[in-house]
Amino acid sequence: MNDYINWIEEKLLQINLVKSMDQAEGFSRLGYTKEEKASQEQFRLISQSLGLKTYEDAAGNQWALWEVDKQAGWIATGSHVDTVYNGGGYDGSAGVVASLAAVKMLKDESFQPRKNIAIIAFACEESARFNVSTIGSKAISGLLDKEKVASYEDVNGVTLEKAFTKRGLDWQRIQDAQLEDDQLEQFIELHIEQASKLEKSGKEIGIVRSIAQPTRLHITCTGKTNHTGTTPMNERQDALVAIAPLITFIEEATIEINQEQAVALVATVSTIQNTPNSMSMIPGEVVVGIDIRSTKADLKHRLVEKVNRFVQQIEMNKPVSFTIKTLVDDEPTDLDPGIQETLTNICEKFGLSSMSLDSGAGHDVMNMSKRWPCGLIFIPCRDGISHHPLEHANMEDLLKGTKVIAEYLKKTSC
Amino acid sequence: MNDYINWIEEKLLQINLVKSMDQAEGFSRLGYTKEEKASQEQFRLISQSLGLKTYEDAAGNQWALWEVDKQAGWIATGSHVDTVYNGGGYDGSAGVVASLAAVKMLKDESFQPRKNIAIIAFACEESARFNVSTIGSKAISGLLDKEKVASYEDVNGVTLEKAFTKRGLDWQRIQDAQLEDDQLEQFIELHIEQASKLEKSGKEIGIVRSIAQPTRLHITCTGKTNHTGTTPMNERQDALVAIAPLITFIEEATIEINQEQAVALVATVSTIQNTPNSMSMIPGEVVVGIDIRSTKADLKHRLVEKVNRFVQQIEMNKPVSFTIKTLVDDEPTDLDPGIQETLTNICEKFGLSSMSLDSGAGHDVMNMSKRWPCGLIFIPCRDGISHHPLEHANMEDLLKGTKVIAEYLKKTSC
Repeated sequence: MNDYINWIEEKLLQINLVKSMDQAEGFSRLGYTKEEKASQEQFRLISQSLGLKTYEDAAGNQWALWEVDKQAGWIATGSHVDTVYNGGGYDGSAGVVASLAAVKMLKDESFQPRKNIAIIAFACEESARFNVSTIGSKAISGLLDKEKVASYEDVNGVTLEKAFTKRGLDWQRIQDAQLEDDQLEQFIELHIEQASKLEKSGKEIGIVRSIAQPTRLHITCTGKTNHTGTTPMNERQDALVAIAPLITFIEEATIEINQEQAVALVATVSTIQNTPNSMSMIPGEVVVGIDIRSTKADLKHRLVEKVNRFVQQIEMNKPVSFTIKTLVDDEPTDLDPGIQETLTNICEKFGLSSMSLDSGAGHDVMNMSKRWPCGLIFIPCRDGISHHPLEHANMEDLLKGTKVIAEYLKKTSC
Repeated sequence: MNDYINWIEEKLLQINLVKSMDQAEGFSRLGYTKEEKASQEQFRLISQSLGLKTYEDAAGNQWALWEVDKQAGWIATGSHVDTVYNGGGYDGSAGVVASLAAVKMLKDESFQPRKNIAIIAFACEESARFNVSTIGSKAISGLLDKEKVASYEDVNGVTLEKAFTKRGLDWQRIQDAQLEDDQLEQFIELHIEQASKLEKSGKEIGIVRSIAQPTRLHITCTGKTNHTGTTPMNERQDALVAIAPLITFIEEATIEINQEQAVALVATVSTIQNTPNSMSMIPGEVVVGIDIRSTKADLKHRLVEKVNRFVQQIEMNKPVSFTIKTLVDDEPTDLDPGIQETLTNICEKFGLSSMSLDSGAGHDVMNMSKRWPCGLIFIPCRDGISHHPLEHANMEDLLKGTKVIAEYLKKTSC
């Protein structure tokens, strides 16, 4: 098996376009950039070396096909190769490499599938660039609201449509990536856990039951800017002072809800935009972005209600006003119970310890599961760190996940 | 006097390059930009129309000279024409126009000074662009630390040195703008109050005793970024959650110090920089900028001590660390008592009600006063609003200030 570890490591480096995974600044390979495209090109080269036929669909997703029978159905596996800013090289890439390695295993043992097998490297999974995630898998699943997201901008003011065009794709055709129901039978994804439940419980494989979906708010606090040196403390309408207790409140209220509930809720004030943000000027307007996740929608809504009431209290006590905008309010996604059982059985067969768990993060599989039976396999990642240069997964763990995928493909394609 | 009101209003519009002072977005005329240069050009045109000789010094300050005797000393008056982002058109420009109008009054009545009179439109007074204020007057007064500030950057990463060069000036020569002691006898500036003491007490003219100087801190809170969806609440090192109570504390501690003291202290968390500031990522590092001002240095230092202790408390309770950097810690500037008395007497002579007060904001005069006897005249501005599109001063009030300047120039130049 050492050969496979070496192969996996080599291909992981190749997809990440580096000679070592230890990169101080991590990886910044945003969706629909030339950096993402360069990794996709490596994905195609590796796929072709395995004898797979490759193509790019109308959303920029990369497909590698092992077609054995034009009349037979398709089983797919895969993940994405894009990253956040200064992210890790395992989030996404690990699943793509494991899928490739699984196909290599089947080919190496001359396994002859009766159904067709596909590997997908989805485009633009991360929301880091355009504040909208999983564009490629949304397009495949028919969940993309093309008109709505076309004008979403990155930090440089480049719209998604423009970036898509610059990437050499045709925005008007993006929905051509959508598949018919019978073009796919099922899909499984492998991903690093991005949390530390596996590591802490000493389990080797996580089998995901449900994927928490974000509820995201933009809360704007409007006061009035003025000169910091000349405005007495009692005449200020300082938006930052007014909104600061909300940051503390969101943490406290979330912890409180968790104490009453077995199912976890997490909430984060992850972005803050202060205007004018100038040393000699009192903050006149502050916008905070809040990301709330749970596999139980009512917990998310309980927190949003509490936030609403808290903000009303601030308005009564401070000379500021608030507006709350809901950006996203998605229902949690449950994965296919039959596939979970199959994956559990495979782990048992190989003597791999496994556990059922939920995913706090969104993944491409959540879109695919709206249309087709789907499964999601987690492997441990060091200290639960992700979206960070210190993100790390062991090659041994990646190999274990690879074996689970290979066995799964065998079972379902024969 | 209606003619003067019309002239003042017309020249104020001309300096501001607009047809109406009512601008929804205010004025954005930052230091060493082409916008500032365009206003300076109008200053020169108006000066020339009054028969004054104009020139630009090595720091980009604009001078208008009424030279009557090469052997005699110089009396100067003036202010600046640059603004903050989306600021008002009175802050600075009012003082420049009043100085021009005062000279026009003297010329109209054929007054013949025995000393020379100069009007200065200082360059880059506001700290909005480079986080360093009053560059032009610092250069004249010999207070500019050329090596230190050369690399200061604006929001686009343009250094002060580069912007200065692009403006057509020679950074290596900026200190040539420095004057010898005997090249100037005294300097007075007129400025809008940027506060509402005059308005509230119904006084027409403010005569400034002392200028509060800022103490400015950058406080960095370092936690660890991670995925918002996968990191349990009790495993987070959220830098924004950790630093939020400091924002509330600074306001509360400042109000508390004010309750014990007759002299006012103001403090503002005016800037906040969150990293990575991405919807799905926990804040890993937050830097806040704090602006503290008082005409009593010990009050500022009491607050800084309290902030230090508070930050240490946070460090004990949260898995984050703090660093505190002092950017500026300037002593308050007292203005010349003799000039204050002269200005008070002038107001009495004209039947203008006046009051002594302190300035919370810094002005070019604070640098000039380190070298020469100086005075600062305030006129009211509506609701104390400044650094904001709603900034406004009445033309009648500006005319009253103009008369005080004119009389002062008469008294001191004869």
